[in-house]
Amino acid sequence: MTVKTSRRTKARTQIEEPDSHVVRFPAERPLDLDCGARLAPLTVAYQTYGALDAEKANAVLVCHALTGDQHVANRHPVTGKPGWWDLMVGPGKPIDTDRYFVICANVLGGCMGTSGPASLNPQTGEPWCLDFPVVTIRDMVRAQAMLLDHLGIDMLFSVAGGSMGAMQVLQWVASYPERVFSAIPIATAARHSSQNIAFHEVGRQAVMADPDWRGGRYLLEGRTPRKGLAVARMAAHITYLSDTALHRKFGRNLQDRDEVTFGFEADFQIESYLRHQGMTFVDRFDANSYLYMTRAMDYFDLAADYDGVLAKAFMGANTRFCVVSFTSDWLFPTAANRHIVHALNAAGARVSFVEIETDRGHDAFLLDEPELFAAIRGFLDSAGRARGLSRQAAAE
Amino acid sequence: MTVKTSRRTKARTQIEEPDSHVVRFPAERPLDLDCGARLAPLTVAYQTYGALDAEKANAVLVCHALTGDQHVANRHPVTGKPGWWDLMVGPGKPIDTDRYFVICANVLGGCMGTSGPASLNPQTGEPWCLDFPVVTIRDMVRAQAMLLDHLGIDMLFSVAGGSMGAMQVLQWVASYPERVFSAIPIATAARHSSQNIAFHEVGRQAVMADPDWRGGRYLLEGRTPRKGLAVARMAAHITYLSDTALHRKFGRNLQDRDEVTFGFEADFQIESYLRHQGMTFVDRFDANSYLYMTRAMDYFDLAADYDGVLAKAFMGANTRFCVVSFTSDWLFPTAANRHIVHALNAAGARVSFVEIETDRGHDAFLLDEPELFAAIRGFLDSAGRARGLSRQAAAE
Repeated sequence: MTVKTSRRTKARTQIEEPDSHVVRFPAERPLDLDCGARLAPLTVAYQTYGALDAEKANAVLVCHALTGDQHVANRHPVTGKPGWWDLMVGPGKPIDTDRYFVICANVLGGCMGTSGPASLNPQTGEPWCLDFPVVTIRDMVRAQAMLLDHLGIDMLFSVAGGSMGAMQVLQWVASYPERVFSAIPIATAARHSSQNIAFHEVGRQAVMADPDWRGGRYLLEGRTPRKGLAVARMAAHITYLSDTALHRKFGRNLQDRDEVTFGFEADFQIESYLRHQGMTFVDRFDANSYLYMTRAMDYFDLAADYDGVLAKAFMGANTRFCVVSFTSDWLFPTAANRHIVHALNAAGARVSFVEIETDRGHDAFLLDEPELFAAIRGFLDSAGRARGLSRQAAAE
Repeated sequence: MTVKTSRRTKARTQIEEPDSHVVRFPAERPLDLDCGARLAPLTVAYQTYGALDAEKANAVLVCHALTGDQHVANRHPVTGKPGWWDLMVGPGKPIDTDRYFVICANVLGGCMGTSGPASLNPQTGEPWCLDFPVVTIRDMVRAQAMLLDHLGIDMLFSVAGGSMGAMQVLQWVASYPERVFSAIPIATAARHSSQNIAFHEVGRQAVMADPDWRGGRYLLEGRTPRKGLAVARMAAHITYLSDTALHRKFGRNLQDRDEVTFGFEADFQIESYLRHQGMTFVDRFDANSYLYMTRAMDYFDLAADYDGVLAKAFMGANTRFCVVSFTSDWLFPTAANRHIVHALNAAGARVSFVEIETDRGHDAFLLDEPELFAAIRGFLDSAGRARGLSRQAAAE
């Protein structure tokens, strides 16, 4: 219990005083949102790894997924676990921090220091809760662009991410084509599918069904919709894996017993695993933030901003693309990624497409997948030559 | 509201006084369950269609799925809708009630008249709630066998069902091979997969997270875990459809609006549809019964009773089989059905296997699928000739 309580306290602390860099934009630099609202002041919490070279040409922006955050490659301040892309980002790793200056910002609407529904509303001095405006992927990217302005970086050498992170990657090229030299969208879609909206809606309904959600005002009333958020996480977690991976990992194995109990305890390992996933998630994540993140993904439909023609979103961009999908990903299947590739082709963009054979499902982008690492390392090497980046460590 | 209240009242009435036939076995005829408990007295509620022929040779047992019931081909007493297999069962339909005597019993643990957690515990005169013993697919089949004994039917001409209904079909052949002339398991598996257990566990956790579940005692305390059960149903409903079907049916269409609302209302048609599915379900189904049904499916692993060798479950049976799967069913994919076919082949059984091309997912077995109808009609015709059934209407 002490560990849990301490995690929850740490998670609360991160919202206003994150263990990372923070830029607090003054009220005079507002963020105009797709919903029509103007957000000011805006706070963006971010991490960096490696060093920016003298030409400011080696910056790689990493965009995190639904429940990720800026802690890409350092121990997480709440969970104490390694960063979520520790295998990908670091010295000598595919996104090599000896060569690249890696930036990752907690997304707008998040709960790790960037302005979101759990942040304090400056008007009231209390958490925004549902008064926080609903944000879009494009809004998240706008906030990141403000961060880059603040850092004095005109052009990103690359922008990379998986899932919701990759939606931001696509939006970056569409919104700021001149600022993105190369882009790596992994396991994503140019629009959220009906099935994916459906799964998100189940998660939201689970949160909102919890009486401790209090109509979204739980932070003002000293409550937390833990059970509802745990159910939401459990449902989502299944979609990140594959049937085959679950079978391989758990099968029908029983948890700490030889016989079924003829009851509703977690007889099976998969049940115990899911319950654990649900319970640990609620210690580190804000329930309203979960609603906002899922909504932003649901609203994502890049072509809709371009007369329904996805290729138009990429027209005129000189960005080099490396699109990646995984064979067993049923949340963002290869077909959805290939759809992006076709649009890029139609727009005359430079694009490589890699479909990686794996049984690990959507989560493969976070796991030890040598083929993924090789593809990204190779792509960045090649893009680095084109960009004229030194092969030496930067800024030494 | 009146309609809803009236539906709920009707649903409550069905538990003790169903609008169907009922057999109340005396306490001297108990049902010994897999969990070791002995259930007595036992009530089985059932429907019949058509007439039993003089030789009692034309009986077809239909087994219903997770949330189905005995109302196969008549207007449902609670919802007022047509029976769940109205397209399949009736005069001139593939399971032709002009030729066959069709029986369907509400399963053990259900909530439409057969003994289940919502029934009155004779010891207390109050609903059993979680004191009702946890039942298995085999227990359900045992109760059905008692019904057939009561009806004086030694051998079924056929036993048919989809999903959980098809698990009962397989169990029927394994438990009572001499009583099953032909069997039609549709869209099922010989054991519930890890992924399917995972989805069920999410549903159960959603129910149990609802404070109105009251530790399972809601019926004793005048409450109903409506929100939790609705979330469970929503999550399950997604798994019954396919990504393609959802895309075709709903896509990203908005519900009664031209623009998204930047809020958490049901902006998308798919959200509105799912919410409706959740809300209507709770009017007709008991939440504890939902827990028991899902648990019975999770526990189903037919080979486990036969040294892990599925073929042994069918060894010595003279039953003719027609196994059916659907290409877009990802809950019980073709591979899981083919696995049954392989075991049947290994056991030397007579088996036809039909994989039906459709994008409608698991629910296809309930829908207007001409290829399915043709396959079942043809299979029953052929089996009827082998059984020496008259082509004329029975008992006329």
